Amino acid sequence: MKEVVAGVDIGGTNTVFGLVDRTGKVLSAKNLKTTDYPLIDDFVQALVSAINKLLLVKSSCKLIGIGIGAPNANYHKGTIELAPNLAWKGIIPLAELIRKKIDVPVILTNDANAAAMGEMIFGGAKRMKDFIVLTLGTGLGSGIVINGQMVYGHTGFAGELGHTIIVPGGRECGCGRHGCYETYASASGFVRTALLLLSELKDESILRDIPPAELTSKMIAAAAAKKDPIALKALDFTAEKLAFGIINAIGFSSPEAVFLFGGLANAGEMLFVPVRKYVEMNVQPIFKGTVKILPSGIPESNAAVLGAAALIWNEKSK
Amino acid sequence: MKEVVAGVDIGGTNTVFGLVDRTGKVLSAKNLKTTDYPLIDDFVQALVSAINKLLLVKSSCKLIGIGIGAPNANYHKGTIELAPNLAWKGIIPLAELIRKKIDVPVILTNDANAAAMGEMIFGGAKRMKDFIVLTLGTGLGSGIVINGQMVYGHTGFAGELGHTIIVPGGRECGCGRHGCYETYASASGFVRTALLLLSELKDESILRDIPPAELTSKMIAAAAAKKDPIALKALDFTAEKLAFGIINAIGFSSPEAVFLFGGLANAGEMLFVPVRKYVEMNVQPIFKGTVKILPSGIPESNAAVLGAAALIWNEKSK
Repeated sequence: MKEVVAGVDIGGTNTVFGLVDRTGKVLSAKNLKTTDYPLIDDFVQALVSAINKLLLVKSSCKLIGIGIGAPNANYHKGTIELAPNLAWKGIIPLAELIRKKIDVPVILTNDANAAAMGEMIFGGAKRMKDFIVLTLGTGLGSGIVINGQMVYGHTGFAGELGHTIIVPGGRECGCGRHGCYETYASASGFVRTALLLLSELKDESILRDIPPAELTSKMIAAAAAKKDPIALKALDFTAEKLAFGIINAIGFSSPEAVFLFGGLANAGEMLFVPVRKYVEMNVQPIFKGTVKILPSGIPESNAAVLGAAALIWNEKSK
Repeated sequence: MKEVVAGVDIGGTNTVFGLVDRTGKVLSAKNLKTTDYPLIDDFVQALVSAINKLLLVKSSCKLIGIGIGAPNANYHKGTIELAPNLAWKGIIPLAELIRKKIDVPVILTNDANAAAMGEMIFGGAKRMKDFIVLTLGTGLGSGIVINGQMVYGHTGFAGELGHTIIVPGGRECGCGRHGCYETYASASGFVRTALLLLSELKDESILRDIPPAELTSKMIAAAAAKKDPIALKALDFTAEKLAFGIINAIGFSSPEAVFLFGGLANAGEMLFVPVRKYVEMNVQPIFKGTVKILPSGIPESNAAVLGAAALIWNEKSK
């Protein structure tokens, strides 16, 4: 029988899951609405039933494990802890709850760590031992691999680069502090930068016709592609800040590559070219020319499921 | 026969070396003047002869390896590369040169990594898998251990926290950039801060009677112990900056402990108390109460030799 892993990505609104084979082929993928299950027991029941249903259809497949990406997931404990965007409050022993219903290994981590694992097992980091994945969405998530191992740290919550402070006393952050990396280098940070530049500069811009609440990273990137001066300057400003955090991360772990993924990274070469320039310009001399800044090697549509599944495939390959 | 390791610490002026047993006992230690050997071949010859002489005296001992701490040492390659404070220019294949004369394993790394290895094998981090050592001397060196392994990174030069930037556009650094961690959080950063406060504040201070070129970290600590207002404020300012870098490092690797070592750390609890306060006050909520800030568990007099020797003992314990 063909061995498969269930990859599960739990988001605030939707949970995506699918069966993934050893080569990274997604055999089938489905959705649950996370918000339909305010009680964790109901969610676990629904998820396990849905996975069993997929296995019934793929009757030649044998499930060997379940990998889960989820907010505030603790790898060491298999728990989701105090996740602000989920209905389940407190500390949820999710791995244990699932194992009571399906007797296979269950591994949890946050979505950025899952993305890094996906990159290592199925993506652009296949032959790398030291790399970092930055997910540039509403916030900035990071998955760090050192010596071929995911960095979880003493608490299980390591890799919170989005909340390292790059501008002391800078922009207000959702974490209650100021100047965090993600307030500048994320899709929403990009929007904040465009608003700042609209306030500071007098250039004409199509962005002046969009209410701030409706402005998105995608719109600004589209405007930059049309040479809108504010959008172009916002892109340059954001690239410099993104590079700044990358430079400090290089000083820490000297990675072979940094992969940029999601939301803001979809701006493509318009973003990557200045990020590379600022990294090379400002990195400590000893690290000049040593780090590749790359787009993710995983298609975004399947990234979450593949990343979660990779958690199990990684264990199997040891 | 009793197995021993030679621990060697190469500094710009002096090279200290000694034989170290498995328990961390330094059986004998000696010095060479590094500056007496402008040619690397002469240095290697002198060092190997001196180690052989120690072994003749301790005739019941068998040498099983040589561990070396040196500036700009590359662990992966066994080289010293472009070290500004050494007479040997270019890339020096030191491990290879030594192995030609004594056929035992030779491992090189920089002094901060050696300090961290010493802490793990012989010091306060014996049962820890995730910790960081900061050496607070003229500069700030760092040795980072994650999952029980030293972090060398893709290049072999990882762990350069002293040159992560904590104040964009801040103090001029010897690396040619501005605002590096070590320009604030080191013995010399402490001196710079005292000078800044002497310029900004009008408090009386015994530090006003000392020419800036003669002012040392030790003098300021002594003045602080006598409640000198400028010295006390310099200590507080330095503690906050030191904490700032620690906080960002916690976001990266979530260590169990951060050990402070050397020069500035000798200020003792006067420094540790405010550092702990600022870390707890400003760290990301998820990491509050998770990190111990500790003095090194290794006596400073033997630290360099023990750390270097630990590089080999660590390999033997695998």
